[in-house]
Amino acid sequence: MRAGLAFDFETYHAHRRRLVEERLLKLLEIAEPSRLYESMRYSVLSGGKRIRALLCLAAAEAFAGSSDSIADAQARALSCACAIEMIHAMSLIHDDLPCMDDDDFRRGSPSNHKVFGEALALLAGDALLVYANEILLKETPLSVDRQNLILVATKLSAASGAAGMVGGQVWDMEMTGMKEIPVAENERAALLNKIHKNKTGALISFSVWSGACLMGASAEALELMAEFGHLLGLSFQIADDLLDVTGDIKTLGKTPGKDLAAGKLTWVSLYGLDTARRKLDELEEKGKSLLTKTGLSESSLQPLRALLAYAIHRSH
Amino acid sequence: MRAGLAFDFETYHAHRRRLVEERLLKLLEIAEPSRLYESMRYSVLSGGKRIRALLCLAAAEAFAGSSDSIADAQARALSCACAIEMIHAMSLIHDDLPCMDDDDFRRGSPSNHKVFGEALALLAGDALLVYANEILLKETPLSVDRQNLILVATKLSAASGAAGMVGGQVWDMEMTGMKEIPVAENERAALLNKIHKNKTGALISFSVWSGACLMGASAEALELMAEFGHLLGLSFQIADDLLDVTGDIKTLGKTPGKDLAAGKLTWVSLYGLDTARRKLDELEEKGKSLLTKTGLSESSLQPLRALLAYAIHRSH
Repeated sequence: MRAGLAFDFETYHAHRRRLVEERLLKLLEIAEPSRLYESMRYSVLSGGKRIRALLCLAAAEAFAGSSDSIADAQARALSCACAIEMIHAMSLIHDDLPCMDDDDFRRGSPSNHKVFGEALALLAGDALLVYANEILLKETPLSVDRQNLILVATKLSAASGAAGMVGGQVWDMEMTGMKEIPVAENERAALLNKIHKNKTGALISFSVWSGACLMGASAEALELMAEFGHLLGLSFQIADDLLDVTGDIKTLGKTPGKDLAAGKLTWVSLYGLDTARRKLDELEEKGKSLLTKTGLSESSLQPLRALLAYAIHRSH
Repeated sequence: MRAGLAFDFETYHAHRRRLVEERLLKLLEIAEPSRLYESMRYSVLSGGKRIRALLCLAAAEAFAGSSDSIADAQARALSCACAIEMIHAMSLIHDDLPCMDDDDFRRGSPSNHKVFGEALALLAGDALLVYANEILLKETPLSVDRQNLILVATKLSAASGAAGMVGGQVWDMEMTGMKEIPVAENERAALLNKIHKNKTGALISFSVWSGACLMGASAEALELMAEFGHLLGLSFQIADDLLDVTGDIKTLGKTPGKDLAAGKLTWVSLYGLDTARRKLDELEEKGKSLLTKTGLSESSLQPLRALLAYAIHRSH
């Protein structure tokens, strides 16, 4: 934990993560056909930092007001947080398939299709994609306004689909297939931005926005949270690219310099180390100021501030 | 058209089908990334009889009351009807993939992955699965009660997922992989029922039920429509199996006897031709009686009656 943060992010993270994992375990109880459920569970319950779920919970809690209502905020946002994790997991299953990135390993374990076969991995991904929507709509408590719930489910689908995650995946494939990546820096930046904004940014941004929306936040506050979410998605990506160059193999869990060696277009290859770092600093300042603009109390905002700091300063 | 039907089903079918296809065309206007949208359009707009969409519209219209409100019923159910067609199309895209049934052709044209490649076909299927939910939630007019809309979207996801279409696909794969199909007739019937009830029945049944639910039908009426939907799904399947044996190659558009020759477990291989035909007759009687029990007028029920007759008596 960084010394500068008064708030104990590690404790917060561990608690909320447990909350999410206990719920996911319940939501994914084995039913028939059991192999399908086993395949779904294998990928959803295989760990991960649950950052997207945490963002959703932290945003909801920020709008909770008194500490009494923290539990209510969690109850309102927990199904959405789990839905987001399911969609994230399904995207990894489909990404790893032979016809996509053809990865045999994920987080150090055999990827889903290596364990369950391609057909079942494909179907487990499909099942998770709709199950996420089903539990969001079915399990979100009645304290959430129905119109807001509909809006949240609509945007979750949009963030996952052609104008979000799936679209970003297609842009990424198209860039990989390009014989020449554009020479002009602004074109390269636009291309990179388009990929990340959709492929990973849309779901991260949705995570923050949805937590606030489920609490009935005002249109102005929702606008600020959406902007904060976009900024956070970008921060995660630039920090990832920096870690690929500067990270330590032990804490990183993978070989650093891989992307750079592969000639991949990243924020570091685009701007260089120093400019990328400066860009992250700017994003941190901007992010803090967006949070302040919501007018919420400092203590309510602590988890979101800590998540911003985590996105930018983490070592893995 | 069968002589016994006073109602002109062909005209009805042609009109409602045009309604659905015009809407689908609008919903799938090309956006970026254009190859993804082209792939989605290729499969959704490639024809098909739109029976599921028609069932949804016909069920909604049955609860419309006066002929004035037919247009209102169509407006309420049209997005749902289109969502169902998108999900049906995505299931065909994923079913045809090499890791699944590995089919190079669909309705006489190259299958989606033969035209767009496997990766894009996979992603187009994913995108359609969430887009269906997005348009259902976003485009269904405010005249539909929001709680009913949430229920419809929840059930669409359930009908598409592990407890519906995707689960049925897994049961089907498991049966194909069985060294020996169970000998006892009741076990074989249970197995066949489980596959079809989920793989194709769940979405057909949902189509009927959802049309009624979007109209705010009573709990009793919804129960009857759900039962009618299940019965209809089963009728389509038994009739398909009969056509495989008795159909004419010209009207059928495929070689008859293929399933039987492949030793596939079908309603005909299970019961024999005569019993299967008798079962269909029973289903028709039962279906008519379920419709009558709704207490709706004869004229309101005409399209649903005609769709039941179509399921059972069609020649292709």
